[in-house]
Formats: sequence, structure tokens, C-alpha cells
Amino acid sequence: MALNVVALAGGVGGAKFAYGLSQILDPGRLTVIVNTGDDFWHLGLRICPDLDTVMYTLAGVVDPVNGWGVAGDTTHTLQALGRYGAATWFRLGDQDMATHILRTDWLRGGRNLTDITQELAQRLGVCQTILPMADAPVATMVDTVEHGEIGFQEYFVMRRWQPVVRGLRLEGIESAKVTDAAAAALAAADAIIIGPSNPWLSIGPILAVPGMLDAIVKRPVPRVAITPIIRGRSVKGPASKLMAELGYEPSARTVAEYYAAVINGFVCDERDAGMEIPVPHAAIFDTMMRSNADRVALARKVLDWINGWRSDVRLGDHPR
Amino acid sequence: MALNVVALAGGVGGAKFAYGLSQILDPGRLTVIVNTGDDFWHLGLRICPDLDTVMYTLAGVVDPVNGWGVAGDTTHTLQALGRYGAATWFRLGDQDMATHILRTDWLRGGRNLTDITQELAQRLGVCQTILPMADAPVATMVDTVEHGEIGFQEYFVMRRWQPVVRGLRLEGIESAKVTDAAAAALAAADAIIIGPSNPWLSIGPILAVPGMLDAIVKRPVPRVAITPIIRGRSVKGPASKLMAELGYEPSARTVAEYYAAVINGFVCDERDAGMEIPVPHAAIFDTMMRSNADRVALARKVLDWINGWRSDVRLGDHPR
Repeated sequence: MALNVVALAGGVGGAKFAYGLSQILDPGRLTVIVNTGDDFWHLGLRICPDLDTVMYTLAGVVDPVNGWGVAGDTTHTLQALGRYGAATWFRLGDQDMATHILRTDWLRGGRNLTDITQELAQRLGVCQTILPMADAPVATMVDTVEHGEIGFQEYFVMRRWQPVVRGLRLEGIESAKVTDAAAAALAAADAIIIGPSNPWLSIGPILAVPGMLDAIVKRPVPRVAITPIIRGRSVKGPASKLMAELGYEPSARTVAEYYAAVINGFVCDERDAGMEIPVPHAAIFDTMMRSNADRVALARKVLDWINGWRSDVRLGDHPR
Repeated sequence: MALNVVALAGGVGGAKFAYGLSQILDPGRLTVIVNTGDDFWHLGLRICPDLDTVMYTLAGVVDPVNGWGVAGDTTHTLQALGRYGAATWFRLGDQDMATHILRTDWLRGGRNLTDITQELAQRLGVCQTILPMADAPVATMVDTVEHGEIGFQEYFVMRRWQPVVRGLRLEGIESAKVTDAAAAALAAADAIIIGPSNPWLSIGPILAVPGMLDAIVKRPVPRVAITPIIRGRSVKGPASKLMAELGYEPSARTVAEYYAAVINGFVCDERDAGMEIPVPHAAIFDTMMRSNADRVALARKVLDWINGWRSDVRLGDHPR
């Protein structure tokens, strides 16, 4: 399909939907802007979990069971690190380690994350453009009842998102800015699609990059979000638990409201048919993506639906 | 044996002899001062090949065929680095990688190489003390006829020591100094033994550390070198080739002459019986170490021999 699409994505859910888009859009038409609030330094390596999940997914090498990491990867280095008494709670595969080693070396050499991400992806044969939300480091800090404020990976991986969250803070966000590459992709986009990622933990940081919201909202094109919540539950991960802890009712409608200042279209799951969505354009599809075929089918439905109304969108045509 | 021994070692040969010593000396009695002129930065990691070879050997996890690296190690990360187009000429095992990752992280955190080496070795269960020759980085640069001056690992690993050497230079040696730990070990030594490592490439850099020669020579104890040359040939590696290229006759006698200002004892191989060695104390043993039993047997012979004359050594008792 000859449509320029920018997708916003966090980890597994957003990556799966991006994979669907990648199979339908013509080569060079898809840009994925990825959350980097999860990035962290670990054992001296710069680890960018969401960028890697999107990259491995688009490269077709992602572990199909976990949805992250490299299929069939081993953990010999991690086990050896454990014998040295080093932290092993963050699972690092041996093939995956190559990504972290090269990225870290290139970062320390002065290259920016945008360039590095492009080069890694190209070398893995990815034909789509994968962009970090910003080149400056941003760290999503999670304020928890049990442990106070902790780093994202401590919350998400080490503590398996069990702590009760009372707030979020994006460390370094004031120094981040929309990259030239992201600005150009958004300026050329025929549609902007927010994947079914965690709105608060994955998409929130992207939208919080100074200049990002404006760069998105000023575009007179479909700006669509796919719900990550079905019948009040996250498809994967802590979204619904987090929403409840932050005082929101966990529902697709709440997600649509969260994005209300950004989107003009919203995709609900068919299991929530009948739910009132306060967005100009709403669609109901089966959004569960269990297989690659599901991902491609959902992407096709969403793109066909968007194509049906995208010529109606006018500049300033926005609910708020 | 209740003797404090300091051994000087490069990679495989010195490590094997150190292993022999470790099996005979009482716990805590052996200190190995190791060449770090081979150390280099590679893919953003600080790699110390000789320190690791000595550590893996004393820990009993060294690859018995190569004499370096971890037994049974895999190379999944290296292969993945290769898929990214990164250099793969320096073989890095997956378990081995943990050593480089931790060392690099700790170095970047401000710890010195002496502390780091001790901690890594202790965590691998090594009961002996392994010390780098210096904490400051020193790089052995090899001036070759074919490629001009190249780094040690480019000469040794990438080009398999095939280039013709016309000179050596120790970059950074003027900033290096004998560490407190090395000085203390030498001051307490009942014997100092130079292992059968390459005199020019492995032991030369250790002796070139400002203050090292003095710290060794002032000790009124046996200071013994084991020949790495048997019948004019290196047991392993480029020693005899290098000697010829630098204008020396490749022989055990040449090695003894090279060390003449340092040693008062020298161990020749039995295959060179009859060779005149210009050193006060000389011994003839089978110095080939094909098995751990050979290593222990040679170490015992050398220590027994040293014990026979160590009470005769007087301060200033030196041939030159």
C-alpha cells in the first residue's frame, strides 16, 4: 500500500502491530517511533528494550514465545555473569548481547541513537525505519508504594510490575527533543498510528518529548490509536493494573480519553463492541494478535478503514 | 611448600607453569605478575588476554586445547556480532565475554585493574594472587616490515604473527608504575620466577614498568627464568621467529643473556643439555608441559632446585 505511515510503539504489542503494517505497506513507507524511556545502563551496556523488540520483530528474528529477544537465543554470558556474582535479573541472550555491545561502543564513540538504531536495523535486513523517540536519554521512573521511586526495569522486570504505582516521572525529558528524522517522518505521514502499547508507560514518554505532541497534532491526517485494553484487561503487561492504581477505570474508553488531545480515530476490540468512544472516527476490530497472520490482518483492516476517511481530515479538525 | 613465590607470566606458557606452582605452594604463597602490554580495547570492551589466560588456568576452567579461553565455551555473541558486520578476528567466547563486560564496567566506574583482577579471580575461586604488571594502560606496539607499526593483537591474532618484526615500542610505559600490591609481593618473595613466556613480548613489558627491574633485582633471593626456547624453537608462539628477526640467535642461551641483568638462576630444557648458560645457577629439566601432571612436576623440580641454593644468595650477589 502506497501510504506513508508513522507508528508509535513501545515493546511487544506495538512491535507486533508494526510487523503487520510492515507486511502491507510498500517498502520505505513505514517509520516506527519507539519509546526509549525503558532504556537503561546495565553492566556498562546501554540497553534499549523497546527499540530491540521492534527491530527483532521487523527483522523476523524475534522470539515468538516471549515476543522479545532473539528466537533460540542462549544465555551463556548471562550464566557466566551470574558465576561472577553479577546481576542476572535482566535476561540478556548471547545473540542479543551483540546488539548491546555494538550500540554501547558506538554511543561511547559519539554517534547518536538515531544513527545507531538505523545501522543496526539495516544490518539485520530491516527495510522499515526504526527511530528512537529522542536521542537524549530519558528514564521512566516509577514511584511505587512499596519501594518509593525505582527505575523502570527494576519495576517491570526485576519486580515483575507487582509494586503498586502512584506516579510516573520522565527523568531527562526536558533535554529531549524531536529528532530531525522523526520530524521529517511525521511531516510526510499520511497516517499516524499509535500501536496497542501501554499508553502510560510506552506511548506517554513518546508524546512527552518536547515538540512531539505538536508535530503529531498539526498533521491533517488520520491519527489513530489501537486499544491495548480488551474488556478492561491488558492484552499483555501492566496497563490495566497501572490504570487502576493511577485512579482510572481500566477500559478502552479511558485509553481513548487519554489520547483525546492527539487522535481523531480509535480502534476498539470487537469484545468491547457498543462502548462509546469519544473520538470522531471509531472502528471495531478483532485486535488480538496471536499469529503473524493476525498481525497482518489487523493492520490491513486498520489501513483500509483509515483510507476510507483520511481524505475528510482537515487541518485543525480536532475534537479539542 | 611454605615459600613465597612471585612468578612473572605472559599468556599460555607462563600460565601453565603458574598452574604447576599453584599446586605445590601453600595457599596464599603464590603471586603472579602478568603482562598487560597485550591489553586492548575491542568493541568497547577492555580485553586483557594474558590476565584472563592466567586466571582461567589457575581457576581450572581454561580450554585445555587452546590454552586460553574457557573450556567448552560457545561463540554465539561473536557470531551475532559478525552478522552485524563487526570484527570477529579476535575470538571472544560467550562465557569469556562476561569477564570483559564486568571488567569494562568496573574500569569505567573508576576501579583500578589490580582490584578488578583480584575480584574476578576470587569470584572464580582462585586462591592465588594475580596482579597486572601495572594499573596504567600500556600497549605493546609492533613495528613490522609489511604493515609498519601495528597493535599487538593485530600482529598476534589478526595477522597470526606472520609479519616480520623490526622493533617493539611500549606505548604508555612511562606513565606506568609498580603497584603497591606488586611491590609488596616482591618485597616478601622468597623466590622470583620468570615463566616460560615470550621474553620480548610478554616478560619485556613487565620488566619495563618503571621501578619493576629495581624491585626485582634488589631482592636477595633466587631470581630464576625458565626457558621458552627448546633447541632453538619456541614451544609455542613467535618467540624464536621474533628473536631471529630482531637479530638474535634463537636459543635458550640468548634468553639467559637477555635476562642476565635480572636473574641469578636459569632453567634450560634437557634437550639443550650441555649448552653454556652465563648465569650463576643453572639447571636442566624437561620443561615441556603437555599435561597438568607435567606442569606440577616441573614446578616441583624448579622449587626443589631453588631450595637447594636459595640460602646462598646474598644482597648484591649478581653477575653484573
